[in-house]
Amino acid sequence: MLSRTINNNPEALISSYKAVRNYTTEICSRLEIEDHVMQPTAEVSPPKWHLGHTTWFFEELILVRFLSGFERFHANYNVLFNSYYKSVSKHWLQGERGHLSRPTVSEVLAYRSYVDEKIIELLSCENDHSELYSLLEIGLHHEQQHQELLFMDIKVILAANPLQPTYLEASIARAPTVVDKWTSFDCGVYEVGHNEAGFAYDNEMPEHRTYIHPFAMCENTVTNGEYLEFIHEQGYSTPKLWLSLGWDWLNQNNIRHPLYWQRCDEFWYEFTLNGRQLLDLNAPVSHISYFEADAFANWKGCRLPTEQELEIYLRMSTDVHFENNKNEHALHPLLASANIGQVWCWTRSHYSPYPGFRPFEGAIEEYNGKFMCNQFVLKGGCIATPKGHYRHTYRNFYQPQQRWMFSGIRLTKGI
Amino acid sequence: MLSRTINNNPEALISSYKAVRNYTTEICSRLEIEDHVMQPTAEVSPPKWHLGHTTWFFEELILVRFLSGFERFHANYNVLFNSYYKSVSKHWLQGERGHLSRPTVSEVLAYRSYVDEKIIELLSCENDHSELYSLLEIGLHHEQQHQELLFMDIKVILAANPLQPTYLEASIARAPTVVDKWTSFDCGVYEVGHNEAGFAYDNEMPEHRTYIHPFAMCENTVTNGEYLEFIHEQGYSTPKLWLSLGWDWLNQNNIRHPLYWQRCDEFWYEFTLNGRQLLDLNAPVSHISYFEADAFANWKGCRLPTEQELEIYLRMSTDVHFENNKNEHALHPLLASANIGQVWCWTRSHYSPYPGFRPFEGAIEEYNGKFMCNQFVLKGGCIATPKGHYRHTYRNFYQPQQRWMFSGIRLTKGI
Amino acid sequence: MLSRTINNNPEALISSYKAVRNYTTEICSRLEIEDHVMQPTAEVSPPKWHLGHTTWFFEELILVRFLSGFERFHANYNVLFNSYYKSVSKHWLQGERGHLSRPTVSEVLAYRSYVDEKIIELLSCENDHSELYSLLEIGLHHEQQHQELLFMDIKVILAANPLQPTYLEASIARAPTVVDKWTSFDCGVYEVGHNEAGFAYDNEMPEHRTYIHPFAMCENTVTNGEYLEFIHEQGYSTPKLWLSLGWDWLNQNNIRHPLYWQRCDEFWYEFTLNGRQLLDLNAPVSHISYFEADAFANWKGCRLPTEQELEIYLRMSTDVHFENNKNEHALHPLLASANIGQVWCWTRSHYSPYPGFRPFEGAIEEYNGKFMCNQFVLKGGCIATPKGHYRHTYRNFYQPQQRWMFSGIRLTKGI
Amino acid sequence: MLSRTINNNPEALISSYKAVRNYTTEICSRLEIEDHVMQPTAEVSPPKWHLGHTTWFFEELILVRFLSGFERFHANYNVLFNSYYKSVSKHWLQGERGHLSRPTVSEVLAYRSYVDEKIIELLSCENDHSELYSLLEIGLHHEQQHQELLFMDIKVILAANPLQPTYLEASIARAPTVVDKWTSFDCGVYEVGHNEAGFAYDNEMPEHRTYIHPFAMCENTVTNGEYLEFIHEQGYSTPKLWLSLGWDWLNQNNIRHPLYWQRCDEFWYEFTLNGRQLLDLNAPVSHISYFEADAFANWKGCRLPTEQELEIYLRMSTDVHFENNKNEHALHPLLASANIGQVWCWTRSHYSPYPGFRPFEGAIEEYNGKFMCNQFVLKGGCIATPKGHYRHTYRNFYQPQQRWMFSGIRLTKGI
Repeated sequence: MLSRTINNNPEALISSYKAVRNYTTEICSRLEIEDHVMQPTAEVSPPKWHLGHTTWFFEELILVRFLSGFERFHANYNVLFNSYYKSVSKHWLQGERGHLSRPTVSEVLAYRSYVDEKIIELLSCENDHSELYSLLEIGLHHEQQHQELLFMDIKVILAANPLQPTYLEASIARAPTVVDKWTSFDCGVYEVGHNEAGFAYDNEMPEHRTYIHPFAMCENTVTNGEYLEFIHEQGYSTPKLWLSLGWDWLNQNNIRHPLYWQRCDEFWYEFTLNGRQLLDLNAPVSHISYFEADAFANWKGCRLPTEQELEIYLRMSTDVHFENNKNEHALHPLLASANIGQVWCWTRSHYSPYPGFRPFEGAIEEYNGKFMCNQFVLKGGCIATPKGHYRHTYRNFYQPQQRWMFSGIRLTKGI
Repeated sequence: MLSRTINNNPEALISSYKAVRNYTTEICSRLEIEDHVMQPTAEVSPPKWHLGHTTWFFEELILVRFLSGFERFHANYNVLFNSYYKSVSKHWLQGERGHLSRPTVSEVLAYRSYVDEKIIELLSCENDHSELYSLLEIGLHHEQQHQELLFMDIKVILAANPLQPTYLEASIARAPTVVDKWTSFDCGVYEVGHNEAGFAYDNEMPEHRTYIHPFAMCENTVTNGEYLEFIHEQGYSTPKLWLSLGWDWLNQNNIRHPLYWQRCDEFWYEFTLNGRQLLDLNAPVSHISYFEADAFANWKGCRLPTEQELEIYLRMSTDVHFENNKNEHALHPLLASANIGQVWCWTRSHYSPYPGFRPFEGAIEEYNGKFMCNQFVLKGGCIATPKGHYRHTYRNFYQPQQRWMFSGIRLTKGI
Repeated sequence: MLSRTINNNPEALISSYKAVRNYTTEICSRLEIEDHVMQPTAEVSPPKWHLGHTTWFFEELILVRFLSGFERFHANYNVLFNSYYKSVSKHWLQGERGHLSRPTVSEVLAYRSYVDEKIIELLSCENDHSELYSLLEIGLHHEQQHQELLFMDIKVILAANPLQPTYLEASIARAPTVVDKWTSFDCGVYEVGHNEAGFAYDNEMPEHRTYIHPFAMCENTVTNGEYLEFIHEQGYSTPKLWLSLGWDWLNQNNIRHPLYWQRCDEFWYEFTLNGRQLLDLNAPVSHISYFEADAFANWKGCRLPTEQELEIYLRMSTDVHFENNKNEHALHPLLASANIGQVWCWTRSHYSPYPGFRPFEGAIEEYNGKFMCNQFVLKGGCIATPKGHYRHTYRNFYQPQQRWMFSGIRLTKGI
Repeated sequence: MLSRTINNNPEALISSYKAVRNYTTEICSRLEIEDHVMQPTAEVSPPKWHLGHTTWFFEELILVRFLSGFERFHANYNVLFNSYYKSVSKHWLQGERGHLSRPTVSEVLAYRSYVDEKIIELLSCENDHSELYSLLEIGLHHEQQHQELLFMDIKVILAANPLQPTYLEASIARAPTVVDKWTSFDCGVYEVGHNEAGFAYDNEMPEHRTYIHPFAMCENTVTNGEYLEFIHEQGYSTPKLWLSLGWDWLNQNNIRHPLYWQRCDEFWYEFTLNGRQLLDLNAPVSHISYFEADAFANWKGCRLPTEQELEIYLRMSTDVHFENNKNEHALHPLLASANIGQVWCWTRSHYSPYPGFRPFEGAIEEYNGKFMCNQFVLKGGCIATPKGHYRHTYRNFYQPQQRWMFSGIRLTKGI
C-alpha cells in the first residue's frame, strides 16, 4: 500500500486534480515564452520542462498502465520528460534540458490538456481504483514539489539577467521586529516519522522511536540583520567557523553573502520574485547553503538542530494554520517568528533511511531512496511551498552547497 | 580610408540597408520564439542575440557618433549585445548568451525597428558622409556574416533536439555525379589579396606579391562518397594520418564521422536544414574539421592547398555568377563540381597578417587582427553565404576542431 | 582535558614515543628513495611527506610551545609540512605535495632525528606536564594514523606502476572457508561512544544513549567470492541497486570491480603489498567504495549497519586480542570470520557530531570536526592498523567514492 | 636518404656518440635522486624519463633492427620510454610520467650503460651502415634536444619548490648595456631552408624560394629593462595590445610578468638555474609566451619577424662562433646584442610544412610533421642549446602560451 488515506470520492479527487494542475499553469502564466526554456545552471530546470515532466508522470505511471487503449501524446516525450527513472526509459541529460527549443510551450500546454482529459476520463470510469488512487495522489504531491521548484527556478532565471526582471509586481510589507525566545525539551525516547492518516512519502516512514538528548530550540529563524552582523564580523574570512569542504567552496566560488544579496554603494539589496528590494533586516535570512548555516551557528556558539529535534519542535507548533503565514501577494519570507512556512531550516542530519525504511514499489521506487547520499535534511516548509503540501514529518533535502531554495537557519543548543 | 568604393547615392544605400536588414529577420521568421534563445554549445549564439548584436553594431558605431541627439534604445543593451569590442564597453560572456530570456524576441525586433528608423533618418540628412558610409558598409557586411552564422547556429540548435525539427520544408535535389579533373599552375611570383574597387575587410589587404611553387588543384571538392570510403578504410583509426592534436581531439570526443552524419541500421543519413536526408554520395562532404580534412588529404596522398594557391585558383574560376550555384529552395551543398558557393574549403594556411597588414581604425580595430592565432583560413564561400558577400580574396577562419560551418575539402598536390 | 588517562611515567612514555616513531621509518625502509616522493592522485601523499608531517606535528604543537629556547629545524618546513591547520600557518596545497623534490629524504630523516632528540630532552626535564602529555599522546596516535595511511599510499604508488613492484616479499596464506552466521540484537536504549580510561579522539565522545531497533549482524565480512558473484550477476550494470551519485561515479570512471582487481585471460588477480596474487575467493573483499558496499548489500536484500549497531556488535566481540588477527608477514586481509582487524567496514552512518560533541582545544580543534560533511563512518580496524591504535569506539571516515583504504562490507538486516 | 653528410669514420662517430651521451648524464649529475622523478606540470618531463627515453630511442630504432640477437634490457621499458611514436608501441601518458618511481635512477643508468655498450659493439662491426649512420645521427640530435629540455625542465622543477634550490652555484656576470640598431633588407625572392652538407631535420627541408617584402630587423633582443617599462605602462592591462586568446590566457592564469620574475618589496628578482638573482635590466628578457612577445611588439609599434625574415637575418650574422656567446659557468641569457645562442626568438610564423616537405621515413615519420598545428616557430638558439646543435635553418616550435623555454623577442618592422 502506497498510501493509507486516499480519498475514495472520485469527484473530490477530480476537483483536487484540476486545482493542482491549474496552479502549475497559473505559476507559468506570468512568464514570457522565452523564460520557459532557460536553464542558467544545471540544477535549475526550464519551466517548460516542469510543465512537461509533471504531465509525463501521470501519462507514464498512470495512463499507460490503467487506461486501456491509451495512446501516448507523442512517441518521444518519454525520453524528454523522464527525469531520472531508469527503470522506465532512457532520459535526456538533466544539464541539457535548456538545449531543447521544441516541443514549444504551446505544444507542451496541449500535452497537458490531452493528459488531463484522459485522466479525468479514467477517473470517471475506473472501478478497481486503490492503486490508481495512490499513484494519482503521489502524482499530485509530485506536481506540488515541482510548483515550489518552479518558483525557485524562475527566481534564478530572472536573477541571472542583468535587466533584473520582476516576476510579480506586488510590494512587500516590512517585516516586524523579532524578540529572541527559546523552548526547551527534556531527554528521553520520542516518536518521529509519519503515522497518521493522510499522505506521506516513503522516506518519512515508518514512525519510530529515537532517543533525544536535552535541547533548546530558538523560536525565531535567524534574520537578515543577524546575518549581516556575521558578515561584518568577518564570518566569511574566519576558517575555524567553517567545515573544510565549506571553506573550499567559499574560496573557489568567491562567496561573501547569501545568494541574492547585492551591495550597491553603501546599501544592501536583495533580489526577490517581486524585484530588487532594500534588504529587510527583520526578515528571515534565506537562500543560504548548509555551509553558511553551520558557520553562522558556530559563530553564535550554537548549532543546527537534528531533524528529529526540529520535527519534535514543529509538532508542538502553535501555527495551526500553515496558510496563515503566507503573504498574499508576495513570494518572499517575511516572518522570522513563524515556525513554519517561511524558510526551510537546515538540520545537521544527513538524509539517511529511517530504521525499517522501505521504498515505494514499482517505478517510483526511485523517488527518494537513491538520493540518500551527501544531502542534508531541511524541515519547516517555505513561502513557496504550495497549500496542502506541508507536513511536520516532511523531509526536504539538498546538497550542502546548494542555496537556490528558500533555505534559512533555526538555532539549537544542548542544555 | 576604410573602403574605397562606397556608393555615394543615399537612396541606393538606403535600399541596400533595408534589403540586408530585412533578410536577417526573414531568416528568423521560420523559427519558433523558443528557438531564438537556445545556445546548445558555447560557439553557437542564440538567433535573438544575432538580431540584437547586428543592430547594436549600427547603434553603437554609427548612431551614437553621427546622429546628434540620439538616445540609445535601452541603457543595458550595450552590455548585452556587444560581442567582444573591449574598447567600447564591458560585454556579456559569450558562453552565457543562452541564459538571457529578456529582452524578449519582440523587444529585440522593436529595437531593430528603432535603429533602422534612425539610420534611415541619418542617411537622409547627413552631409559629410565618407566615414559614415564606410562604417555603414562594414555594418552591412558584418550583418551578412551573421546571416551565415544564423544558418550555422540554427542547424546546431535544431540538430541538438531529438525531435529533429526541420527549418525549411523544401526537398533537396539529387547531386549529379562528379568526374575527377585537375588544373595545374606554374611556379613564380603571383599577386594575392584585395586591390580592386569594392569593399574588403582589412585582413584581405594589402594586395602583395608571393612566390608560388608548382601545384595542381582538383576541380571538384571531395564528395560524401569519397569520404565514406575513407571511413570504411579505417581512416578514423589510423594514427599516422592525423595531426597529433587531431588524434587527441578524435579520441577525447569519440569522433567517427562528419558532424551531422547519423548511421541507422545499414544506412547513412545526414541532418540538414531541410530535415534528415539519406546521405547523397555525390554531394560535397561538409561540416568537417581541419583535422579531418588534413587526415583525408594525407590518406589520398595529396594535401590541402595554401590560401594563396586557392585564391589563385578561384580567381580564374569560370563560375562567373556565384548566385547561380545556389539551390533555390534548399540550404544544403549539392554541387561538388562548383568552384565557389557550396562549401568553404580548408587551407593549410594559418590565419596570419598579410605583409603590411593594418587593422581598421577605431573600435573596429578589433574586428579581425586579434583572432590571428590558432585558426586556419577557409576560402570559396558556401551555400549559406549571402548574395553579394562573396569575394575571391575573402579569408574565412576557424579553429582546427570546429565544424559547425559548411566546411569541406578541395585537394591539392605539388607537381 | 584532552585525555583522561595519560601515562605519568616519563620513561614509559619515552619508550612508547621511540617505538611509534621508529615504526614509521621502518615502514619506509623498504622503499626506494624515488618511491618517497610520488603522488599519483591528490588523495595520496608522498611517504616523504608523511615522514615530515608527523614530525612537524611534534615540533609545532609541542616543542615550539613547551621547550624554551627551541629553534625550528628549518624556517620553511612549517609551510611544507602543515597539512590543513589554518590556525597555525599557511600550508602547501595537498594536491601538490608530489611536486616537491626538496627537502630530500635524507634531510627529512635528519629533521626527524632533530625533533626526536628535542622531544626526549623535553620529556626528561618537564615538570608541569599534563597538557604536554596529552598533546604527546595525540601526536603518537596521529602518527599511527599516518602509518596506516603510509601502507595505503604505498600500495597506490606501487600499483600505479606498470612494473608492479612488490613492497614485501612474504607469501600470503590461503584464506580458510567461511560459514555464514548471524547475531541478533534486541531493541532498546544502548550506550555508545567512548567512556573508558584510555585515549580517544574528540569525535568518539561523549558516551551517550541511543535507541536501537532490532537487528542482526553477519558474523563474517563479505568475501571476494561473494563479491565476484555480484559482478557475474550484473551488479555493476543494474541501476536500481545503486545510489544516484554512485551510478554516476560508476559510469564516469568506468568502474567494474574493486580497486586492485585485474582480469587477465580467464583469471582474476589482486594487486597486494605482497605483489600480484591470484584472487583468493575466501578472503574478505577490500578496497571498495561506499557506493559498491551499499549496492552489494541491496543486491543481497540486506543493508549496511549503522555505526551504533556495529559498535554494539564489536563491543561483544570475542576477538579479545586484535593483534592475533594479524598476518605476521603479509599485509593483506585474510580472515573474513574475524570481527576486527581485517577490513574497515562501511556503515550507513554519515560522519556527524555526537550529541554534546566538543572539539579538542587549541590548534587541534581542527583535527576532526571540520570534516563532518559528506563522509561515512567505517569501523573495525584493518590489517594495516598499527598495534595499540584500535578501539571499538573508533570512528574512521571516508568519502563515499574513496577506496584506497582497506575497506570492506559487513551485512546487517532488520529483524 | 635521411641525411646527406654522415660521417663515415666509425671511430669519430663512436667518439661523438660517447660525448653526447655523457653530456646528458653530466647534466643530471648535479641533481638529487628526488629531483629526477618530479613532474610539476604536464609539459615538463622528469629528468629520469629523459635519461630513459633518449636511450630507448637508440634501443628501439637501431639496436632492435640492426644488432642481430639483441635482447631488450627490459620487456616493459618500451611502453615507459616511448614518448609518442604510435607506430612503435603503446606509450605511457605524458602527463603521468611523474607517477613512476620505478625503474629507479640507478636502474635507468644501468639501462644507459647497457645500450651504450651495444651501440658501440654495433658500430665496431657493422658494414652496410648508411641507414644505421643516419638513424644514429638523428638519435644524437634527438638527445641534444632533450639536453636543452633537461635544462628547461630542471628549472621548472626547482622553481616550483618554495626552498628555491640552486642547480649551479656559479655567479652570473652583469650584462653590458645595449645600443639600439637596425639592419634593413630589400624585397625580392630569397632562398630559405636547409641545403648544405650536414645534418638537418625533415622540417627544415627542402630549401625553397620565398618572396620577401622590405623589412628591418633589430640587432638586439628586447631587454628586461625594456620589458619592465612595458609592465609599468600597463601593458598587461591594455586589451588592444593582445591577441584575443592571449587576453583570455592572461586573465585566466593571472599573468602579470615573465615566468620566473618575482617581486619582493620594491625589487624585481628572477629565478635562474644559478639561484634567485636581482633582475638584470640589460640582459635579454626570457621565458615569455608568444602572446607576451606579440603584445610587447604591438606596444612598441613594431611586429615579430616571420621565420623567413629571421632566417635571412641570422644567415648574415657575424656571430661566426655560436659557442663564443656561451657563459662558461652560468646558464642564463646575458647578451642582448648577440644574434644567436642567447634566447630563442618568437616569430609570427605558424609552424607549417615547407613547400615540398616530406617527412622522415619509418618510425621517425612521426618526429615533426604531426605537430604542425597551433604552434609558432622560434629561431636563434639559446644559452641551453648544446654545442653543435645550432643551425640558422633550425625550426624550433612551441604553443603560443608556453614559456618554460628560454624564449625572447627580436623586433621587426616593415620599411
